[in-house]
Amino acid sequence: MGRWEPDARGRLCEAALELYSEHGFDATTVAEIAERAGVTERTFFRYFADKREVLFSGAGVLEETMLAALGAAPVSDPPLDQLAAALRAAGEVFPAREVSRRRAGVIASTTDLQERELIKLARLAGAFAGALRKRGVKEPAASLAAEAGIAVFKVAFERWVGSRSRRGFADFVDEALAELRTVTSAATARTLTR
Amino acid sequence: MGRWEPDARGRLCEAALELYSEHGFDATTVAEIAERAGVTERTFFRYFADKREVLFSGAGVLEETMLAALGAAPVSDPPLDQLAAALRAAGEVFPAREVSRRRAGVIASTTDLQERELIKLARLAGAFAGALRKRGVKEPAASLAAEAGIAVFKVAFERWVGSRSRRGFADFVDEALAELRTVTSAATARTLTR
Repeated sequence: MGRWEPDARGRLCEAALELYSEHGFDATTVAEIAERAGVTERTFFRYFADKREVLFSGAGVLEETMLAALGAAPVSDPPLDQLAAALRAAGEVFPAREVSRRRAGVIASTTDLQERELIKLARLAGAFAGALRKRGVKEPAASLAAEAGIAVFKVAFERWVGSRSRRGFADFVDEALAELRTVTSAATARTLTR
Repeated sequence: MGRWEPDARGRLCEAALELYSEHGFDATTVAEIAERAGVTERTFFRYFADKREVLFSGAGVLEETMLAALGAAPVSDPPLDQLAAALRAAGEVFPAREVSRRRAGVIASTTDLQERELIKLARLAGAFAGALRKRGVKEPAASLAAEAGIAVFKVAFERWVGSRSRRGFADFVDEALAELRTVTSAATARTLTR
């Protein structure tokens, strides 16, 4: 192995995902990941704290990208429209759909990873609510919109990775948002009917 | 200590919550909880697997109660109305508001407990979506309604424990649901406007 390791990070991510899919997350060691990527274990730890981190290293960029898109949406837009802009922007930083699909498969197969994913989404909901409040949206509208946005995100993501069509993630966001509106508008507001 | 320990379980819950609030969750030991409740450690472990469990032992009953209420709602009702019936029923099994407030405070102060709470809510969302599907609601409407229902639940709970008014939990559910409808109906469906 030479001094140069072009895109060691990318190769490590790919190798990890392959091994997690082949042998399971728990059964895979850092040594195996490094070996398949053609780097040393020391190089692995230069990029990632542990083997779980490989799957979540994109969370920071994802959150930044989404918050930037939210910040660029007109403040006069309804809160959920501002969030929709943020959710659509996520598609720009997701890895290729096939990679996202495999990642989702690995996470779904391990309780510990599912929990980590839940925590990531809860943090995202908190960041969304905070951003909306800063933009003048009152509570509880900000929190409800943020949580509803995360619901849209989850459904859109699941449908996107499960789909074979060429449509981009943004289309799935729009679709899930339209569905959410249908679901909530069908509900009878009790306070109005009694 | 006699052979009889009337409501040892209730006393243990109360003692645990007091100690967690006074000294923090991490600093409290099972021995201290048992001592304050006037029972042995062995008795503690007859009721709870560990000190975390004291805070989550009601989750099973809560889920059952909510699913029973959902099952009793007319199938012809919109999905979110069926869920609202489930959410309102939660108020019947919650401990007194002051106890719920202290419990919420303890959970908010410890990352580990927050994670556990998130997992509980994610399970609940899954159970809601499953129940709706069995009642004929298609995907993704079932999942979106379930996640929206959890969002309403979280906001209603937070407002209820934070409130000084005498209104019951069900009123806070209705209020949060009405807010959610306002938030989502204000959103512009992109698919319709372009």
